[in-house]
Amino acid sequence: MYRIEGMRETLHPHPSLPPSRGKGHLGRIGRMDKLGCLYGVGVGPGDPELMTLKAVRVLKASPIVFTPQAAGSKDSLALTVARNYIDETKQQLIYAEFVMGGTTDDVWSEAAERIADYLLNGEDVAFLTQGDPLLYGSFMYVMVKVQAAHPQMPIEVVPGVTSITASASRAKTPLVSHAERLAVLPAMYGIDDLRDVLARNDTVVLMKVNRKAMAAVSQLEADGELSRCVFARRATTPRERIEFSLREVAPEETDYFSMLILRGKKG
Amino acid sequence: MYRIEGMRETLHPHPSLPPSRGKGHLGRIGRMDKLGCLYGVGVGPGDPELMTLKAVRVLKASPIVFTPQAAGSKDSLALTVARNYIDETKQQLIYAEFVMGGTTDDVWSEAAERIADYLLNGEDVAFLTQGDPLLYGSFMYVMVKVQAAHPQMPIEVVPGVTSITASASRAKTPLVSHAERLAVLPAMYGIDDLRDVLARNDTVVLMKVNRKAMAAVSQLEADGELSRCVFARRATTPRERIEFSLREVAPEETDYFSMLILRGKKG
Repeated sequence: MYRIEGMRETLHPHPSLPPSRGKGHLGRIGRMDKLGCLYGVGVGPGDPELMTLKAVRVLKASPIVFTPQAAGSKDSLALTVARNYIDETKQQLIYAEFVMGGTTDDVWSEAAERIADYLLNGEDVAFLTQGDPLLYGSFMYVMVKVQAAHPQMPIEVVPGVTSITASASRAKTPLVSHAERLAVLPAMYGIDDLRDVLARNDTVVLMKVNRKAMAAVSQLEADGELSRCVFARRATTPRERIEFSLREVAPEETDYFSMLILRGKKG
Repeated sequence: MYRIEGMRETLHPHPSLPPSRGKGHLGRIGRMDKLGCLYGVGVGPGDPELMTLKAVRVLKASPIVFTPQAAGSKDSLALTVARNYIDETKQQLIYAEFVMGGTTDDVWSEAAERIADYLLNGEDVAFLTQGDPLLYGSFMYVMVKVQAAHPQMPIEVVPGVTSITASASRAKTPLVSHAERLAVLPAMYGIDDLRDVLARNDTVVLMKVNRKAMAAVSQLEADGELSRCVFARRATTPRERIEFSLREVAPEETDYFSMLILRGKKG
């Protein structure tokens, strides 16, 4: 049982923790008399202007920047958002390549090991995450691995604007107010119980909507069981698409970054 | 069925919509040949550095700033966060005073009427909201009223970092990953079915935690039914308090801005 009280800023100055002497993952001795800090940086939903002031400051000050990148993709989405704040003549940019929707544990283990290496050498590392680092963000896998191997390592998480509130903002659609309940579920892992979830919550957000989920929700909409049905894809990016009925959305327009904001018809 | 495609920026330049000629709520004629834009500005969870770049830009450019304020309180929380970006020699600051947890519909109706008056005069209005404007934010009440009275009025919502991800970030506690489900419910409106909600979701966030909810969750924790129990109050503010067991939290330390992040023990 431990506590955190009051605000702590760990970038300037660094927490003065003892360096790891041969006990770190790689058995390395810190180059400087301090450890680096691992920053999980939420860069927000897509519009670079929706980065926080803190994300920008931390990113600019970090000598090492890790960015997740889907294998086979030319771009890292998080990097596209943050690109303007990275100076590759002064900062080292490292891609952690993963397979979208695939088994990625090895990727994050390798990234965590490389990151620990930099941290033990006293260098700060920023790990970019689209949206928020701890809400379906890849940072948490890396964070948990670094925490497990190096419990003493300074870690700071910079929260970001999520795609959920960004989608609602672009659609000007209230999510929840007052006594209402919100459920968030990743549709690609199954929504067989969607009717039940709609009945138990006021607003239901389906993330990672695939064609099967689109078909199921289209049926609910056609049956008149929804009082609200907002489709949002890549909100706040140049490829944004917002629709207020699934009748407007062809199946091939749905991708991994598609989302639905639903409300059922009550009573 | 309407759609929004591609990014739109409405602050510079203004959307050139026709002014309301006597059809507005107050029957006023626009002073200039355009309407103002209503901005719902999410200022984030409390740390001013967690404002987005866009929130700062919009706020600085808005001649009129509305801020909600609890009746009897000396400070507006949203205003405390945004204070550095408001110049009262150039911008008009207006307080919308409401009773915390009380019936506030009249307050928002009055605020919406005053706001519409400025908008019809061609002046942009920024309405501050702690966290995000559409997730338990007071902005949505105002937005809905302005939309109903003036469907043609330009409105833009600037999403903000929520207290949910901010609390998780300060506790370094993952919220949900991969196939996991998240439920968010305001505890002060009842959690009699909390065991059921915990069984149906991987992570449960209780907002607006009162003493009754604290007692109920303390009992669950004592019974060994929780695998995670994080108490977070006013995360990222100077009054932040984070605890990893309710045994550390006295009932009087709980307030309207207290939150719990819970995970049940699975079968």
